[in-house]
Amino acid sequence: MNDFKPTARSKVKRLPKRGHYDRATIYAVLDAGFVCHVGYVIDARPYVTPTCYWREGDAIYWHGSSASRMLRHLGKGADCCLTVTHVDALVLARSGFHHSINYRAAMLFGRAHKIEDPEEKLAKMETFVERIAPGRWPTLRPVNKQELKATTLLGMEMSEASAKIRSGPPIDDEEDYALAIWAGLVPIEMVAGAAHDDDRLAASAKRPPHIEDFAHLGLKRR
Amino acid sequence: MNDFKPTARSKVKRLPKRGHYDRATIYAVLDAGFVCHVGYVIDARPYVTPTCYWREGDAIYWHGSSASRMLRHLGKGADCCLTVTHVDALVLARSGFHHSINYRAAMLFGRAHKIEDPEEKLAKMETFVERIAPGRWPTLRPVNKQELKATTLLGMEMSEASAKIRSGPPIDDEEDYALAIWAGLVPIEMVAGAAHDDDRLAASAKRPPHIEDFAHLGLKRR
Repeated sequence: MNDFKPTARSKVKRLPKRGHYDRATIYAVLDAGFVCHVGYVIDARPYVTPTCYWREGDAIYWHGSSASRMLRHLGKGADCCLTVTHVDALVLARSGFHHSINYRAAMLFGRAHKIEDPEEKLAKMETFVERIAPGRWPTLRPVNKQELKATTLLGMEMSEASAKIRSGPPIDDEEDYALAIWAGLVPIEMVAGAAHDDDRLAASAKRPPHIEDFAHLGLKRR
Repeated sequence: MNDFKPTARSKVKRLPKRGHYDRATIYAVLDAGFVCHVGYVIDARPYVTPTCYWREGDAIYWHGSSASRMLRHLGKGADCCLTVTHVDALVLARSGFHHSINYRAAMLFGRAHKIEDPEEKLAKMETFVERIAPGRWPTLRPVNKQELKATTLLGMEMSEASAKIRSGPPIDDEEDYALAIWAGLVPIEMVAGAAHDDDRLAASAKRPPHIEDFAHLGLKRR
């Protein structure tokens, strides 16, 4: 896998040692989550909308109601910035200045396009549901034409991308290490709890294996 | 507390019943977290940067290195959209179409300004550290002039804001409830684990009480 070329937009300017441009690192950040923040510009003003995403190869996909302002706007090919962030720890240092957060973030730039072909759209929706809960799609009531029409699906080839990662302990001023001040890390995780049955579950509906573990979404077990 | 007036920018267009404009609801979303995604426009293109924030009254604050592109740009008073998102559950329905996410999101619009006065800046940094770990600030090596100068602090009065919240079970098509398909919720939480001592901790440094609980940041206990 070749690296992304750092550009004026994607280059990590502040703390460049935290910047990464190789696909393996960027894709690992993307593949460890499922909620992103999409940025777009309408009438010269910024908007940031949270939404679910998934990756297939060098493209990223997201979807939603055809009535969504974000999807309608980006479906026209407007410039897009899509950011994924995982918070890993509070970094508590010996001075306020060196406090930090351990995180893994990816920032993608590009222009999205609508996936209009119904078969391709359906296949992508299957990929998404299977990404969230592997094995679930064949158990579901099939999608109908009206539902597919009411859904807008966007794809974006990643043309510019970077990751920014901080890990490890607090980095204090050398003379501060001798001070009687506690310093360290408070780890932070996203966890999935035990699945709750819907109140209106049919008596014949059995709990499937795909609700037991969500490690593939970056979720630890409670 | 009076409500925000829904505007062309802040009005929840898709699924308006999920929209909230009252300060109590919006501030509860803001006060249940500490990482936001800031959107801004440079050369007509969107950027989305994750950063820490805190709220004081009707204003929101964030900070970072004076070298940060995001802070330099927004410090000039450019338009800003700041979004905070909490993911509460996977909503697994009986059809692909009705799958969803339970979430609480707040979207703020405004223009930031730099806080330049050193005393005000220092007081705000204290508020931030105390927000993250109550009681920690007085235990720290004091901030020096150089550090304060190297830090840019931005504040933004919330002039337009909305929250969008989904909660509760999957909502399926009435005829699908009878199907033998499992449906329900998978709860998702952010949790804080046990604090790790820094490897270079001074023998005289004691573990403070403020590293035991982070419920005030919306973090459950592991």
